Amino acid sequence: MQDKFHDHCGVFGIFGHAEAANLTYLGLHALQHRGQESAGIVSSDRDRLYSHKAMGLVSDIFDAPLLATLKGDIAIGHVRYSTTGGSHVRNAQPFAVDFSLGSIALAHNGNLVNAMDLRYSLEQRGSIFQSSMDTEVVVHLIATSRLPSLVDRIREALGLLKGSYSMLFLTEKSIIAARDPLGIRPMCLGRIKNAWVVASETTALDLIEGEYVRDVQPGEMVILDEKGMQSVRFADPVPHRHCIFEFIYFARPDSFIFGQEVYGVRKALGHELAREHCVEADMVMSVPDSGTVAALGFAEGRRIPFEMGLIRSHYVGRTFIEPQQHIRHFGVKLKLNPVRKFIDGKRVVVVDDSIVRGTTSRKLVKMVRAAGAREVHVIISSPPTVCPCFYGIDTPTRQELIASSHSIDEVRKYITADSLGYLSVEGLHRAVGSNGNGFCDACFTGNYPIKFDDHPYPRQMHLF
Amino acid sequence: MQDKFHDHCGVFGIFGHAEAANLTYLGLHALQHRGQESAGIVSSDRDRLYSHKAMGLVSDIFDAPLLATLKGDIAIGHVRYSTTGGSHVRNAQPFAVDFSLGSIALAHNGNLVNAMDLRYSLEQRGSIFQSSMDTEVVVHLIATSRLPSLVDRIREALGLLKGSYSMLFLTEKSIIAARDPLGIRPMCLGRIKNAWVVASETTALDLIEGEYVRDVQPGEMVILDEKGMQSVRFADPVPHRHCIFEFIYFARPDSFIFGQEVYGVRKALGHELAREHCVEADMVMSVPDSGTVAALGFAEGRRIPFEMGLIRSHYVGRTFIEPQQHIRHFGVKLKLNPVRKFIDGKRVVVVDDSIVRGTTSRKLVKMVRAAGAREVHVIISSPPTVCPCFYGIDTPTRQELIASSHSIDEVRKYITADSLGYLSVEGLHRAVGSNGNGFCDACFTGNYPIKFDDHPYPRQMHLF
Amino acid sequence: MQDKFHDHCGVFGIFGHAEAANLTYLGLHALQHRGQESAGIVSSDRDRLYSHKAMGLVSDIFDAPLLATLKGDIAIGHVRYSTTGGSHVRNAQPFAVDFSLGSIALAHNGNLVNAMDLRYSLEQRGSIFQSSMDTEVVVHLIATSRLPSLVDRIREALGLLKGSYSMLFLTEKSIIAARDPLGIRPMCLGRIKNAWVVASETTALDLIEGEYVRDVQPGEMVILDEKGMQSVRFADPVPHRHCIFEFIYFARPDSFIFGQEVYGVRKALGHELAREHCVEADMVMSVPDSGTVAALGFAEGRRIPFEMGLIRSHYVGRTFIEPQQHIRHFGVKLKLNPVRKFIDGKRVVVVDDSIVRGTTSRKLVKMVRAAGAREVHVIISSPPTVCPCFYGIDTPTRQELIASSHSIDEVRKYITADSLGYLSVEGLHRAVGSNGNGFCDACFTGNYPIKFDDHPYPRQMHLF
Amino acid sequence: MQDKFHDHCGVFGIFGHAEAANLTYLGLHALQHRGQESAGIVSSDRDRLYSHKAMGLVSDIFDAPLLATLKGDIAIGHVRYSTTGGSHVRNAQPFAVDFSLGSIALAHNGNLVNAMDLRYSLEQRGSIFQSSMDTEVVVHLIATSRLPSLVDRIREALGLLKGSYSMLFLTEKSIIAARDPLGIRPMCLGRIKNAWVVASETTALDLIEGEYVRDVQPGEMVILDEKGMQSVRFADPVPHRHCIFEFIYFARPDSFIFGQEVYGVRKALGHELAREHCVEADMVMSVPDSGTVAALGFAEGRRIPFEMGLIRSHYVGRTFIEPQQHIRHFGVKLKLNPVRKFIDGKRVVVVDDSIVRGTTSRKLVKMVRAAGAREVHVIISSPPTVCPCFYGIDTPTRQELIASSHSIDEVRKYITADSLGYLSVEGLHRAVGSNGNGFCDACFTGNYPIKFDDHPYPRQMHLF
Repeated sequence: MQDKFHDHCGVFGIFGHAEAANLTYLGLHALQHRGQESAGIVSSDRDRLYSHKAMGLVSDIFDAPLLATLKGDIAIGHVRYSTTGGSHVRNAQPFAVDFSLGSIALAHNGNLVNAMDLRYSLEQRGSIFQSSMDTEVVVHLIATSRLPSLVDRIREALGLLKGSYSMLFLTEKSIIAARDPLGIRPMCLGRIKNAWVVASETTALDLIEGEYVRDVQPGEMVILDEKGMQSVRFADPVPHRHCIFEFIYFARPDSFIFGQEVYGVRKALGHELAREHCVEADMVMSVPDSGTVAALGFAEGRRIPFEMGLIRSHYVGRTFIEPQQHIRHFGVKLKLNPVRKFIDGKRVVVVDDSIVRGTTSRKLVKMVRAAGAREVHVIISSPPTVCPCFYGIDTPTRQELIASSHSIDEVRKYITADSLGYLSVEGLHRAVGSNGNGFCDACFTGNYPIKFDDHPYPRQMHLF
Repeated sequence: MQDKFHDHCGVFGIFGHAEAANLTYLGLHALQHRGQESAGIVSSDRDRLYSHKAMGLVSDIFDAPLLATLKGDIAIGHVRYSTTGGSHVRNAQPFAVDFSLGSIALAHNGNLVNAMDLRYSLEQRGSIFQSSMDTEVVVHLIATSRLPSLVDRIREALGLLKGSYSMLFLTEKSIIAARDPLGIRPMCLGRIKNAWVVASETTALDLIEGEYVRDVQPGEMVILDEKGMQSVRFADPVPHRHCIFEFIYFARPDSFIFGQEVYGVRKALGHELAREHCVEADMVMSVPDSGTVAALGFAEGRRIPFEMGLIRSHYVGRTFIEPQQHIRHFGVKLKLNPVRKFIDGKRVVVVDDSIVRGTTSRKLVKMVRAAGAREVHVIISSPPTVCPCFYGIDTPTRQELIASSHSIDEVRKYITADSLGYLSVEGLHRAVGSNGNGFCDACFTGNYPIKFDDHPYPRQMHLF
Repeated sequence: MQDKFHDHCGVFGIFGHAEAANLTYLGLHALQHRGQESAGIVSSDRDRLYSHKAMGLVSDIFDAPLLATLKGDIAIGHVRYSTTGGSHVRNAQPFAVDFSLGSIALAHNGNLVNAMDLRYSLEQRGSIFQSSMDTEVVVHLIATSRLPSLVDRIREALGLLKGSYSMLFLTEKSIIAARDPLGIRPMCLGRIKNAWVVASETTALDLIEGEYVRDVQPGEMVILDEKGMQSVRFADPVPHRHCIFEFIYFARPDSFIFGQEVYGVRKALGHELAREHCVEADMVMSVPDSGTVAALGFAEGRRIPFEMGLIRSHYVGRTFIEPQQHIRHFGVKLKLNPVRKFIDGKRVVVVDDSIVRGTTSRKLVKMVRAAGAREVHVIISSPPTVCPCFYGIDTPTRQELIASSHSIDEVRKYITADSLGYLSVEGLHRAVGSNGNGFCDACFTGNYPIKFDDHPYPRQMHLF
Repeated sequence: MQDKFHDHCGVFGIFGHAEAANLTYLGLHALQHRGQESAGIVSSDRDRLYSHKAMGLVSDIFDAPLLATLKGDIAIGHVRYSTTGGSHVRNAQPFAVDFSLGSIALAHNGNLVNAMDLRYSLEQRGSIFQSSMDTEVVVHLIATSRLPSLVDRIREALGLLKGSYSMLFLTEKSIIAARDPLGIRPMCLGRIKNAWVVASETTALDLIEGEYVRDVQPGEMVILDEKGMQSVRFADPVPHRHCIFEFIYFARPDSFIFGQEVYGVRKALGHELAREHCVEADMVMSVPDSGTVAALGFAEGRRIPFEMGLIRSHYVGRTFIEPQQHIRHFGVKLKLNPVRKFIDGKRVVVVDDSIVRGTTSRKLVKMVRAAGAREVHVIISSPPTVCPCFYGIDTPTRQELIASSHSIDEVRKYITADSLGYLSVEGLHRAVGSNGNGFCDACFTGNYPIKFDDHPYPRQMHLF
């Protein structure tokens, strides 16, 4: 069994609400798109912690009697992405342990690029590891610190971490939220009545009718305890490097992250695409739902009618039977079906957010063409993905990224499109309103914000 | 435990394919939107039948080992809608029994309005009933017939039925498909290589890469057996009365039913709405996904930008925890969230397919207004729903249908919209391309195609 | 999937107790040895029936919330034996239906030898069958009767049945218990406070602290309703033919059936064996638990020390991994292990209740010998089993019964015992206190109490 | 959630067999009586470890596909006792981690009385704890050791432990078995073909047809690796203190532990009882199955007939419905039922292995008397239990042990017996063949083999 070292995640925490576990359940529900593999909640009644985590969707894991066992008015929760293989409840979060200062639980969104090194050092010191999560090293750093207070220990530990993290620590009496100095992953702070809430995205606040206050700042620790909210900087300010891919694909369009609503950015991506690509066509359609908002922007910009030409099934099961040989493009078919008569004879633009290996795009183009499209033009609302992400987005190795080794025209040929248009890196930055700063666009440029001599290429580890 | 007498359903059958059960599984998957309560498959190896049915989604019920037990090259399947309460595996279909001519299984989409009367007569004759499904009477009619051949018996039984039905019978050696003389529910015939396929909607054919041949005709029995395909008329031709609500809401937009692609009809509904309602607004949005295509048509017709202003969660669990008092409009929130900043300050049109009780629309309007909309106009892509359906669409009683007892302006006030526009009945017929004939629009007009003296108002029955 | 036509079962019913479903649950628990495949309870609140049945053990199927849904003060329950293959919840009982007189549920212990004929006739009349249980014909006979009252219909139906049955009928307002005229299977009547109880064995009464009143008489219907208890004879008295194998093996030793406590009969079997077989040995041991009481009697009679030389595991799982080739006698080993040092060098008598195919006895003898026994003598507390049972005990076909085609010495050689002693038929009858009358001993003598020209050899049926 | 600090367990390990996981499954099955709460297996293919553990019985947790994932020819397994509350898969064993020398898994039977102190020290050093098992400290001691080799580290760790332990360590390439210097819990060494086996009891060897070689010696480490079997003493020899209660109750009667077969010792307990207690009675019966062998010895010694007067149900579910008020002695009734007619009017001796709180004995005596017994005499095959066990037998606190605060006659009155006879401590030692040495009898004498100033009274800990 092999676990990927980095993965998608969502975190949620609430301090000082009588229904802490219930609201965490709802918050995780609103963050479910950030991870569908496993979910967990740890709560505190200010005396001790209560925990439950399991594989599966939030709504399948928790029910009312179970939530009732998660006592107290403080809770944190976590959802984790389903990667192929390597899934194991051992790697579900929050990660909770006893140590010299009491109990602590940790929920982490992001990826620590120096986790293997830290783990090696910690093992040499005598630490034992029960999971293959990079997150486990953080708890060990805190436990092995010589500093007297927990806040100081966390600050010290964070100082040793390299990579991306939006993290929540839960102790018997407090929640501590921390975000890496580059601010790679989002995390916001909100209120619901007198309670404080921390969440990966504002959709979680919306669902529980909480009020958005501000983002947790890069390099900031927010301490929530009986004294209220306290802000502590643990790192000197550096230029931010927000993950630009959150805007392109990962975050929900109704979320407000990095100071903007995702929906608006995606529309702008479409507008930029319209400016860059003068395709002649009869209709614009999207690969739902991730490509839809950019498609609307593109259609608007190009004044071509937008249609829902691909219908998405809401019932894609987690496992299914693949019939032998008889059916082509099967995986895509189970999820999407073209609107045949409407497409028939038309010149069609299909807008998608990105091309990874190219296999899915190829199936899609063939499917749309089989539905009668006279021409199939593919427009991608991001630049060619040429480098893997080491900061928490699940991408394959560089070798598997088709654009890393093929020209745009080669990709076009592979996916059998009549034309293929990517967004330029400049267009991308215009759409997000930055001039190349403030965002990590390493997956498109190889411009990694954390120096490679600071950390080795991430390695994989295995653990029974 | 009380079961509703009528319910949504989808049926699928395949004759003469080595992977009959696997393809039925996939076909049901593509029809899952027609019923999420239970599903079942019965297959035949030309010697005996094999059966499995259970509560839940198709992808949760079946897996490869289980499908392997459903032997043979003939199979039929069924998905059933989840009604509140009354769900029981006893009522799952296909319904399979032994009788004097061998084994028979039955999958039924539709509703028999004279089922209670037939059941009463059959019980007086000595028949026993193990379910509360109207479908069970059909099997008894066949079993108690004095005619020698199965086809004659089925023909005789169908002659006694009143109501809507698209039905599949499976015997050891054949599939017989039958559709009521009015053609209320859809059912199509297709091929995949040498095998014959019958399905409620063409989406099922698309997924398995089958080829659409034609619809099973109203009043037609299609017999699939070793001799090939045979068509038998069991009723004299009468004017058709296709369910117009299949176009408005129930069928998938990528399906081709009643001779048209649903998508095109929904766009036309939007165009008609645009003609009828001259709302001034800054953006058009839909209640996804059912309102989206009509919204695109409306936006196009009114030349107002269409936006995905309400984001739909793909992870709405079947059960969830409702927090006490703290959160308003909860049910809707779990499913939909407005794109706040984008809506803020705008005059918004929300397009939905219908208003039933009005409570959901009211929540939606309040949610959109809370997101900052300056004006909220509601446009409905169908006329006011004033009468219940007795032919297979799950509607509440007349008393619960808000439009049956309130004027449009009263409904508008209740849902707190700035304006409310329904589609006219004439506009509806224009959109579907009929001049009032050919379709059942009883839910909007009370013009039921089956006379009421022919059958009592449907009653409910209970069974342990 | 093929179901055996005859099977072991246990039934329980209670009329007029506020905790009817709970006590039925407990009663079934005490009858669990009579059937481990499936269990079910149907209750009535005097208005309608409530039902739950499933595959598995009583304690796994039911829990408190589920029992709470089985409302009312009347209930019947059923446990069914696990036969290999053919298990399906479709065949679980009680079997509940609606018919012209209302609802009825039926729980049946026994086997109807003319079920196939009745089924054939009923199918010709137009009845449909949803299970492969012989029991289903009884309900059809009642439903198709022309007599006005339920009691008359049941009486009429029972008049048509051939075979063994201890049956409970539940209607909305009554329980009717009936036992075949020969009294083949046991059924007793008891009280708990003001409530009436009917059960296959008195152990069910013991567990709920009910009081034994008397047996339901062969050919008697006992009607329990608001008027109290009423006895109706539905058949003329004939000599009883109680199943002698209930005493030898099937009933629990603490049960009082057919007018005697099973324990006492089993001790007497051992005493008779001691009289018939003068084995010289150092110790007597039993195949626990079924052979233990007879072994005690034998040891007492022969004045040889009794020892628990074979230790039974209490955790024999329903499925297990059989290692390849490496381990001999595996099935037996998982259940029993000899006490090595204690057996070593001794002359051992092993007492078992019967030999069916001989394979298990062969494994046992080898196991005991491998544990060091100098001599292994096998004593069987019944005569050679030479004929199959058609009345409700699960025996293999005649061909598979080793004693039907092999002499005692051949059996001895096959099982590799130093000596083998069966009980004589005369000894058996002495032990049960009959002079050859009053009991069915067909499995030992072929003397079937129901003439063969009255019914064909039982055939097997299958149903999807 | 509170976990008991000490618990019953069984361990099994096999080195060098192609079916290592399958045989471990079987071995655990044969040790299931030592723990029914949870079970786990960790295997190694000499490269990495594979693990599965869960709550429940061995046969419910594992199936063939799952065992197939536990690759390799080395495996260890563990079964754990079900204590009330506090059960959590977090505390299931084997406990597997990564540390500086690689991966290690640990399975432990016994109880470490100084675990809390060690844990405190380890936490001060920076160790984190994820379970409430005493076992977790052992792994930390090994991980934090400064010694270079694993064997030296284990030796060092064992030197710090106080309490009882029969432990198995699994690394990628070896199994190391260790037993505490006092030899409190059993552990034997065996062979099956060329493979080595280690198990808590010989029953595990019997089931897989392994051959008993010898016990792992107190204070001995047995190292199984590619070089074969190697024995290392890690502690100076001290007088052994085998748990005498393993003979009285805990081990299976067919096991050979501490140099004797349990069955023989239990018979001897009965003989000693017969010598000490001259009860006049008509029959001797046991509380099955634990009291049966001693009862046979007592009956033999007193020349009173032994009968299976209490019938044990084989289907005692883990959960059941307790009816309100109506039924007395319910818990016992569900498990045991007296043979009424046989007991009626008799003077009965009931032999049991021990009396803990007295409540069960009281129910039993009342049940036997209600069955008609004229006199009920209780004989216990051990001395009064006056002190709790701190070395791995699950006993309640001293306050709850009825004999710790009541005279024998007071206990007799409480349990409502006509007479009550315990075995004397001397008789107990005679039966096991020791003169007071070689065995720990602290539960009867308070003579704890580990000094109290060496460790505090065991405390309980909690962990989320």
